[in-house]
Amino acid sequence: MIVRGRPSALGLFFVVRGSLIREVWPQVVGVALLSALVVLAHRSVPALVPGVNTAPFALLGIAISIFLSFRNSASYDRWWEGRKLWGQIIQTARDIARQSSMIEGQPERRGLLLAVVAFARRAERQLRAAPGPESADQALAEAARQIGAAERAGTLTPMEALVLHQSLVRLSQSLVGCERLANTPLPFAYTLLLHRTAYLFCFVLPFGFADTIGWGTPLMTALVAYTFFGLDALGAELEDPFALLPNGLPLAAYATTVEIALRQALGETDLPAPAKPMGFILT
Amino acid sequence: MIVRGRPSALGLFFVVRGSLIREVWPQVVGVALLSALVVLAHRSVPALVPGVNTAPFALLGIAISIFLSFRNSASYDRWWEGRKLWGQIIQTARDIARQSSMIEGQPERRGLLLAVVAFARRAERQLRAAPGPESADQALAEAARQIGAAERAGTLTPMEALVLHQSLVRLSQSLVGCERLANTPLPFAYTLLLHRTAYLFCFVLPFGFADTIGWGTPLMTALVAYTFFGLDALGAELEDPFALLPNGLPLAAYATTVEIALRQALGETDLPAPAKPMGFILT
Amino acid sequence: MIVRGRPSALGLFFVVRGSLIREVWPQVVGVALLSALVVLAHRSVPALVPGVNTAPFALLGIAISIFLSFRNSASYDRWWEGRKLWGQIIQTARDIARQSSMIEGQPERRGLLLAVVAFARRAERQLRAAPGPESADQALAEAARQIGAAERAGTLTPMEALVLHQSLVRLSQSLVGCERLANTPLPFAYTLLLHRTAYLFCFVLPFGFADTIGWGTPLMTALVAYTFFGLDALGAELEDPFALLPNGLPLAAYATTVEIALRQALGETDLPAPAKPMGFILT
Amino acid sequence: MIVRGRPSALGLFFVVRGSLIREVWPQVVGVALLSALVVLAHRSVPALVPGVNTAPFALLGIAISIFLSFRNSASYDRWWEGRKLWGQIIQTARDIARQSSMIEGQPERRGLLLAVVAFARRAERQLRAAPGPESADQALAEAARQIGAAERAGTLTPMEALVLHQSLVRLSQSLVGCERLANTPLPFAYTLLLHRTAYLFCFVLPFGFADTIGWGTPLMTALVAYTFFGLDALGAELEDPFALLPNGLPLAAYATTVEIALRQALGETDLPAPAKPMGFILT
Amino acid sequence: MIVRGRPSALGLFFVVRGSLIREVWPQVVGVALLSALVVLAHRSVPALVPGVNTAPFALLGIAISIFLSFRNSASYDRWWEGRKLWGQIIQTARDIARQSSMIEGQPERRGLLLAVVAFARRAERQLRAAPGPESADQALAEAARQIGAAERAGTLTPMEALVLHQSLVRLSQSLVGCERLANTPLPFAYTLLLHRTAYLFCFVLPFGFADTIGWGTPLMTALVAYTFFGLDALGAELEDPFALLPNGLPLAAYATTVEIALRQALGETDLPAPAKPMGFILT
Repeated sequence: MIVRGRPSALGLFFVVRGSLIREVWPQVVGVALLSALVVLAHRSVPALVPGVNTAPFALLGIAISIFLSFRNSASYDRWWEGRKLWGQIIQTARDIARQSSMIEGQPERRGLLLAVVAFARRAERQLRAAPGPESADQALAEAARQIGAAERAGTLTPMEALVLHQSLVRLSQSLVGCERLANTPLPFAYTLLLHRTAYLFCFVLPFGFADTIGWGTPLMTALVAYTFFGLDALGAELEDPFALLPNGLPLAAYATTVEIALRQALGETDLPAPAKPMGFILT
Repeated sequence: MIVRGRPSALGLFFVVRGSLIREVWPQVVGVALLSALVVLAHRSVPALVPGVNTAPFALLGIAISIFLSFRNSASYDRWWEGRKLWGQIIQTARDIARQSSMIEGQPERRGLLLAVVAFARRAERQLRAAPGPESADQALAEAARQIGAAERAGTLTPMEALVLHQSLVRLSQSLVGCERLANTPLPFAYTLLLHRTAYLFCFVLPFGFADTIGWGTPLMTALVAYTFFGLDALGAELEDPFALLPNGLPLAAYATTVEIALRQALGETDLPAPAKPMGFILT
Repeated sequence: MIVRGRPSALGLFFVVRGSLIREVWPQVVGVALLSALVVLAHRSVPALVPGVNTAPFALLGIAISIFLSFRNSASYDRWWEGRKLWGQIIQTARDIARQSSMIEGQPERRGLLLAVVAFARRAERQLRAAPGPESADQALAEAARQIGAAERAGTLTPMEALVLHQSLVRLSQSLVGCERLANTPLPFAYTLLLHRTAYLFCFVLPFGFADTIGWGTPLMTALVAYTFFGLDALGAELEDPFALLPNGLPLAAYATTVEIALRQALGETDLPAPAKPMGFILT
Repeated sequence: MIVRGRPSALGLFFVVRGSLIREVWPQVVGVALLSALVVLAHRSVPALVPGVNTAPFALLGIAISIFLSFRNSASYDRWWEGRKLWGQIIQTARDIARQSSMIEGQPERRGLLLAVVAFARRAERQLRAAPGPESADQALAEAARQIGAAERAGTLTPMEALVLHQSLVRLSQSLVGCERLANTPLPFAYTLLLHRTAYLFCFVLPFGFADTIGWGTPLMTALVAYTFFGLDALGAELEDPFALLPNGLPLAAYATTVEIALRQALGETDLPAPAKPMGFILT
Repeated sequence: MIVRGRPSALGLFFVVRGSLIREVWPQVVGVALLSALVVLAHRSVPALVPGVNTAPFALLGIAISIFLSFRNSASYDRWWEGRKLWGQIIQTARDIARQSSMIEGQPERRGLLLAVVAFARRAERQLRAAPGPESADQALAEAARQIGAAERAGTLTPMEALVLHQSLVRLSQSLVGCERLANTPLPFAYTLLLHRTAYLFCFVLPFGFADTIGWGTPLMTALVAYTFFGLDALGAELEDPFALLPNGLPLAAYATTVEIALRQALGETDLPAPAKPMGFILT
């Protein structure tokens, strides 16, 4: 995730890091160059490259904008849902620390909280396609065992144990939600259709502009291409909210937040440092 | 569901499998051929096929885009809701395994977990219009009986039984939600209206383009037709998220996930293999 | 609700039943005739009916499309919410059958399940403005009495009774949600404004097209009118999801589903037949 | 709220009550008059009032439509949320009547149900900025006291008291939700920006139409102005769903519904009459 | 938050405070001046600054409107979610006062309610990046301790303590939700892309208007720039709902509401004054 203050209105034009310009500039420049060629050809041999009306391009361009907007909206909703699910993991971890305070100092509490820390760490690795030998689900089973042990030892009442078990259900719910996002991309045909039409559109656009705006064509087509290719690239990035991309969610930072909160609740003082962004990017 | 890494920006143009081009190419080619005929006729006998302005077509085309976008959004929401409901089935199955761990090794637990496996398998078949002799609902009743037996045997406390019964309610909730999606298509009149206007529009479009963009018409109308017919076809596919179509949800794979998780919890080692995509498609 | 397989791409053009064409054809034909008159007048006496530019019409037409789309989206959400609420009624009825299985064979269970059947039947009639002498709410009160009787008789534990009472709360919740949909239409001013502007727009449109597309005008205006009037009519139909209209929800079929499930749970064999569509329409 | 059957397609054109035409007709007529003046000036002194192209106006007009649509959508969501919250109040009141049926005939039940009636009445007054001497919150505290008294008297079990307390939480939740809607308008800058641009746009529009559609200008600008000013006015009305405006929610009728249901549950027969619309408007 | 009655239709044009005009007027004036220069250049040296068609600008302008609208919608959702979360804090605080009424007058109740007041105050400071020495989370831990003390003292039953603990979970949930909004801005690339394209578009727009609307260009481009820059600025403001900006949420006023309600419940009479807007702005 990119973490930086909002630059001034003017400064926003000179930001490169975190911008999509680094990803789409070759295509944008390609469209601009093609545009220049088309204008040149239209001016030199108008018989071969005749001037055509812009209206058909407006129709197609607006249609593509509407569909791109829907797709961006769906990608953003996935990204935000991923954020909400991790917010729920952080909150539930804190709740478990509070809900287990009546067995403070006992080994079962330590076991429970460390299992929750392991859950967060393993969930992060699983969602980033780098699973370790043990799964996050096993950490939940371990946590359930610790609650059971405390209940059998009589230090937790059945009601207190029930409350803790419900918190485990919420952790499991968050994990399954995250796996759903990670394993189920947007329908592939949608990605394909929009990518293709956006690109084809930008490559035929110069023919529609050459006659009406002449040498302004490279600038205008580059502007349209920057908008369309940029949104296409951003949609593809947000679609997979857990990937290690600049706009991806900082799962490692979230897992560290959980670890700090729970180790603090256990009275430890040798805590990991909170995650810091590197070059404005938090992972 | 189509499972494949995102090809490169260029590679995306040459993907056929999973693309909608296989479904709509005859219509797209038809529109392009018609366009060529219209341009030829307009150039040969302009008196009969006069050149007309594009603006009326832009108005209608943008209106259709807006309505197509709404319908795609509704279809996608259905598809995603189907995914969420199956995520809930998977999660609840795992929760039941954890919540019944206090009766590990007893026959009621085995009976309960196998009933949940049967529930997932039967739900899959029912939603795909291939129901077996016994219904998913009967599997839930069987699961409830096992919980009751364990409670009467005194191995489950009333509170623990309550928690398990609540999980069954969630399974029942997921199933009814899936049946709602499977039995209630989008209003038929909507499908009909959009399909008709999108097709009629593409077939009159060549007349609007023939004069303004000449021999560019076949390309532009094919591009518009690909976008509109493609979105229409994709909307129809996503509308029924459980169908055995390339973009449908892989219910068999989900049911296998449930089976593996629960048999593992029972300590079995002879597990079914996880589902694998065939030709990029997971069913 | 219209129940039929999706016809082929070509077949979709010849479907009449379930189409909106039966409702809007007089207006569509009216617009086409008016268009022919306008073109004739424009060609005969251009001084009186001058040719005007299409752009102002495009502006207004696109604005109306955007607002129509919002209204259709709101109507569809109401329709889908009605469907969800009835799905919840069906699910809760099944849950009650399962949750009361521990008092199988006792008169209180029979009384409870029959009260739930009565609830579904009365809810259907109330929502269709044909209430019988007794209300659905009274059926819930009767169900609560049966649960209370079983609890006093000691055959239901307090915890089991609590679970059943919570199911009654869900039934009450579904009913109030349905009443909200039935009693609170979309703001009347919205319906009025959109209906008026859509109709006025289509009646002035021929003047905008007469000069630019000549004798193509009747076809294009009819196409625009079919789209706009069709969406207006469909929005009005979906807005009231419980009405006895072709696209309305089949409440009677849902109530029959509840009755079959609960009578089956009571061990009855003389069950009502599942509802069947008549002329593709399920009520 | 306006309560009336849907007039026929033709009848809809002659409805005045409930229409927004009464609120926006001066502005619409103003725009039409200005248009006539502009056309006259353009025809008389074309040097001073030259004919200009419509395209820039189309761009701005479509942009404003998109933003107006978003604002209407947000206003409608507020209105519908207000309706849902009052539906929840009505449902919870009925639930409390049912959930307290085991103490039927005892003074605590009477005290509890009358406190809920007072809650609904006071909530209505508070949301309409006419609070009485006692708050709805105090009615909830009174209801909680009655439940506590019945529990101490041993007529309610702790479990039954818990269920009733949860219903009070739902009432409190509904009230806070309503207060949120009443106290937090849409961001003021949004209202301001859209109102200003919609009005400015309609006042410059005649200059864009004068040349292209001549004496058709007053009609077309009036149509655009009716759509834009009407949606602006409707958005402002729905934004505050509890206000005493024609499209506002009938809080008094809802509170009467609660009173009738609860007095009936107490066995009273001298019930208030259900609210009736006056001149199609229910308050 | 800006708190003021809605001015009259005419008055809305002369409101400055709360308007975005103070933030964007330099850019709007800049665009108008540039437009005047372009028109002058086009009229003086048409060879250098030729007249170009508006259609390409309409295409790009409408595309940007669609994307701006999506972003405003996402920003508004964040703002409204922030409002809902604080509504939940206020409601839960009142619920805790009611749910603890059975230990009225005892020190644990006083400790509990004061901890909730501290929670609200600290949450406000944390969300506004001005955290004090102690965190809101510690206030929740303190509240949990007070509930535990009352339970051990036997003045709260386990069931009553459970209900209070569930309320603490809701407070924790609200806080984590607020932190999510405060720490996770909209994807930076989105902000950047839209800001850049909106500004670039407005700066090239005069070239598209100069020929078609001549000296009307400065007015029209200023109107477009006011709409686009205004929405861009408002989106940036609503994106961060807790910031001390005119349209930000009045967290201090909300915390004061909590404090007044809870001190009143404790029987105190020396209450803080409700927050009042200063210059129409409530913080």
